[in-house]
Amino acid sequence: MIYNFSPGPAVLPSRVLEEAAVQLVDFWGSDMSILEMSHRSKAYEEVHQDALDMWRRLYAVPMEFEVIFVQGGASTQFAMVPLNLLGEGDSADYICTGSWSQKAIKEVGVLGKKCRIAGSSEEREFSYIPTPEQLDLDERARYVHITTNNTIYGTQYGTLPDTGSVRLVADISSDMLSQPLDWDRLGLIYGGAQKNAGVAGLTVVCLHRDLLKCRSTGVPTMLQYETHASTNSLYNTPPVFAVYMLNLVLHWIEAQGGLSAMAAHNRHKAGLVYQVLDQYAEFYCGHAELQARSSMNITFRLANRDLEARFCADAEGAGLVGLKGHRAVGGIRASTYNAMPVEGCQALVDFMQTFVRTKG
Amino acid sequence: MIYNFSPGPAVLPSRVLEEAAVQLVDFWGSDMSILEMSHRSKAYEEVHQDALDMWRRLYAVPMEFEVIFVQGGASTQFAMVPLNLLGEGDSADYICTGSWSQKAIKEVGVLGKKCRIAGSSEEREFSYIPTPEQLDLDERARYVHITTNNTIYGTQYGTLPDTGSVRLVADISSDMLSQPLDWDRLGLIYGGAQKNAGVAGLTVVCLHRDLLKCRSTGVPTMLQYETHASTNSLYNTPPVFAVYMLNLVLHWIEAQGGLSAMAAHNRHKAGLVYQVLDQYAEFYCGHAELQARSSMNITFRLANRDLEARFCADAEGAGLVGLKGHRAVGGIRASTYNAMPVEGCQALVDFMQTFVRTKG
Repeated sequence: MIYNFSPGPAVLPSRVLEEAAVQLVDFWGSDMSILEMSHRSKAYEEVHQDALDMWRRLYAVPMEFEVIFVQGGASTQFAMVPLNLLGEGDSADYICTGSWSQKAIKEVGVLGKKCRIAGSSEEREFSYIPTPEQLDLDERARYVHITTNNTIYGTQYGTLPDTGSVRLVADISSDMLSQPLDWDRLGLIYGGAQKNAGVAGLTVVCLHRDLLKCRSTGVPTMLQYETHASTNSLYNTPPVFAVYMLNLVLHWIEAQGGLSAMAAHNRHKAGLVYQVLDQYAEFYCGHAELQARSSMNITFRLANRDLEARFCADAEGAGLVGLKGHRAVGGIRASTYNAMPVEGCQALVDFMQTFVRTKG
Repeated sequence: MIYNFSPGPAVLPSRVLEEAAVQLVDFWGSDMSILEMSHRSKAYEEVHQDALDMWRRLYAVPMEFEVIFVQGGASTQFAMVPLNLLGEGDSADYICTGSWSQKAIKEVGVLGKKCRIAGSSEEREFSYIPTPEQLDLDERARYVHITTNNTIYGTQYGTLPDTGSVRLVADISSDMLSQPLDWDRLGLIYGGAQKNAGVAGLTVVCLHRDLLKCRSTGVPTMLQYETHASTNSLYNTPPVFAVYMLNLVLHWIEAQGGLSAMAAHNRHKAGLVYQVLDQYAEFYCGHAELQARSSMNITFRLANRDLEARFCADAEGAGLVGLKGHRAVGGIRASTYNAMPVEGCQALVDFMQTFVRTKG
């Protein structure tokens, strides 16, 4: 048995994979593959619409929000957000909680737009999430941008910040579909699908209709939210297979009990691993501060750093793969997305305890 | 037996589908799916590099060209080409041979850039490709843009136009990998993968290194060719599965004898169908003029238009699906991409002959 702790592309539910493998050769008895279906075929249109509807239902997306499917990953959203939302003279606030926040901030400058850093946890190696008191928000900002979960540093917002009348824009790439969202506080969310929502190559955006109209001139048609919202995300050929996989994953989540059940499941799984970090605090050193611990990515070093390579190698021997940490933090990172079964986290816990006993 | 004549997403080689279905559950004995592989894993990196290398080898891409993988389809390239290639005061020439050319031209205006229409076949319903004599080329243009194959109208360039010292930019979305390319005449090619190169969600671009440096300011990082060329197309998470499928398709093409063999195979298959159009010219009316006939998309009307719906319905009953023409032309369109076996075209020919005998 292999447990895949990769940060993304990542583990997928085995039931989803088995269903996809069958339909890859014969889609619903058509004697054609889902991959061969025209995006204008009735069969694909049903999959596409069902994925949009299921997303809306599972997340309880309010009616005044649009759900759209695009391509290009969060990196493309780093540009689309300011291009669409910032007009002449507008400015945005960004809260910097890691490498992806930094990339989002840098992109505003690439576009010749204006933003302020309204808060940052950089001075403590992005090990925490700034509290509301630590933020310096501009009331006139067009939006406040956050990264809800920081894959590399293993931190996550507990609750979304209250930004008053200023819209909150959230990159939810690495905790998408892992818990319900508080729509009252949100104006726009976006994220790549390759962690919790299927496979790489699909980006989901939900935004309030008030934000649809592009406020810059000269923006490529494909980078305008309105292009996709006004065509039901069928302006051009969508990434058919990625939408199909998202749809399978959404049905799987519903069968697990929906997003509240996913959230409880994720907290329980991550809790098992954090408990070992706390229990052997002289051996394992968690990177994230207590309040900011992510239920998606658990990052830690070994007190004896010389043992880290050995930890990863032995873990791989035990069927626990993808545990090497990102070079920015080093050490170990266990990504425990929705599809990681509790048995996977238990196997990691057992391995970590045994590793302390034999090497500690 | 079903034969899928859809214009794209389209038919895939059955050997490719069968291999993908196995590896969707167990990739090279890893007990993990290809879909679960991190894009930084050794396994994926090999697939990625092999796809880039195979593309270069099959197309005999000259060393001074870069091959890059991006997302967003040809529609995104309609913007990336002028954004990267046109600086302040620059102008480009566009040859208009159908709906996709029109979209490419329109996008230059959306971006506030300049272009001229150097030739068009619009006045005869895009039924031909302008000859060199019919073009009005500007020697000072930064590039000349063409669409090598027009999916909707069923026309295709026989040879690429000689644009002298001005670079040729070609949208090859719908005849990608169907024949060798004359690199001496080309500066840049691009195309979505969903017709001949696998699945939707991947765009391949090859461009001369001279064209790499972006000539506009404020261009999103993800829309700059240099971003992808300088990172081996791994700047952010690539559409892993689409690259994997491209790689399988490239190996399949190589096993068929490469691009010259594909070209002969495609000419032969399309020839069978065109022969029926010529033989029953009073019953079937081909849309494309003789010199411009595409070997990828065969478009025709029935002299008695009332019979067209019946033609499609009866064909579907006989296992020949996806034959309904695009609304711009109406009638019938048979897309005979690389993966359409000669048996599929023969079955269509038999059906067309029988249809004449019973309804003619």
